[in-house]
This record gives sequence, structure tokens and C-alpha cells, in this order.
Amino acid sequence: MPGVAELTHPERSELQLTDVLFALSDPERLAIVRQLAGGPLNMAACQMTDPNLPKSTRSHLMKVLREAGVIRNEPQGRQRLLTLRRDDLDSRFPGLLDSVLRD
Amino acid sequence: MPGVAELTHPERSELQLTDVLFALSDPERLAIVRQLAGGPLNMAACQMTDPNLPKSTRSHLMKVLREAGVIRNEPQGRQRLLTLRRDDLDSRFPGLLDSVLRD
Repeated sequence: MPGVAELTHPERSELQLTDVLFALSDPERLAIVRQLAGGPLNMAACQMTDPNLPKSTRSHLMKVLREAGVIRNEPQGRQRLLTLRRDDLDSRFPGLLDSVLRD
Repeated sequence: MPGVAELTHPERSELQLTDVLFALSDPERLAIVRQLAGGPLNMAACQMTDPNLPKSTRSHLMKVLREAGVIRNEPQGRQRLLTLRRDDLDSRFPGLLDSVLRD
């Protein structure tokens, strides 16, 4: 029985500052990042600021964050686990995530 | 004789983190910010990464930076002086500008 799909993630060395800044520049995406700063979350448990957001919009927000290298979105059984890539971000852009989460 | 137009700038207290992150998320805009980190510049002296950018694009880049509160764009005689709002940014979002300029 196939599980949920594997998605691609950029390597740490591939992360681009402008992509990361863009990913963090949206209030809904930033709210997701703030939640994940507390630890990994099942995608279904991740709250949107606007609970009426269509599922497609929610998926797109996750895609922008994943493609910029801000989060990992990985299969966990039949669900998806979201993880903030804090070590990768701190290594490539020291202080950036702390300054954003502090606000 | 009228000088060049006064433009509006948000107050320090009005700056929004997501607006600032968005303003910094474009390579051309970030290149402008890096130049202004060295001190104020006459707009005509500010180099674009792509020297073939139309003047309208250049004006739009400056507008996004100004409206987010990242730079001041003020008349200086018949020219315009661009200044990075470092104190305002450091006060509102400590560490953010340093982490972005460090990269």
C-alpha cells in the first residue's frame, strides 16, 4: 500500500536568503513558522490564522515554505509531519530566525 | 521654484515585520539596501544589479522599500537622497537587519 508522497526539499547549501525572506513575508506563512518553532506538528494540527482558508491555499503556503527551505513536510504514516528547519536556517543565516520569531 | 516632491514614510511604530521581510526578499531591493548600509546615497548613484532595468522598475523598487519603512527617500535640492532606516529597523526588529546584511 503506497503511503503519502515524498516531496523534495532543498539542501542546506542551496538555501537562498531572498527565498527565505519571501517565505517569511506572509502573515499566514509566518504564523505557521511560529507554531513550528514550538516543535514539529502534524499538518492537520497546524492552525491557520484564517480558519476559512481553502485547502488549496493552505497547500500552497506549505509549498512556498518547503521550497524555500524553511520547513520540512514529510510523510508520517498516512499523515504529514511539518518541521521547522531551524538548524539549517541558523547555520546559513545566523540570527535571522531568532529576530523574526522575537517580534 | 518647487523642489522635488515630498514622499510619505511610515512612522517607526507603524512598521510591519512582514512588509519589511517582503521588501528585503527581492535581490535588486536587497542590493540597494546593502549599498545604503554603507551610508546615504544620491538616488542617481545607487547601482542596480541589472543596469538595464527600466527607470519605472527602479522607481517601483524604491517605493516598496520606502513604504515598508526600510529606506527614506527625501528631496535634497533637485535630487533625491536615499537613507537606510537602520535605527528604526534595529529598534523594531532587533537583529534582523544585521542577519540579512551578514549573508
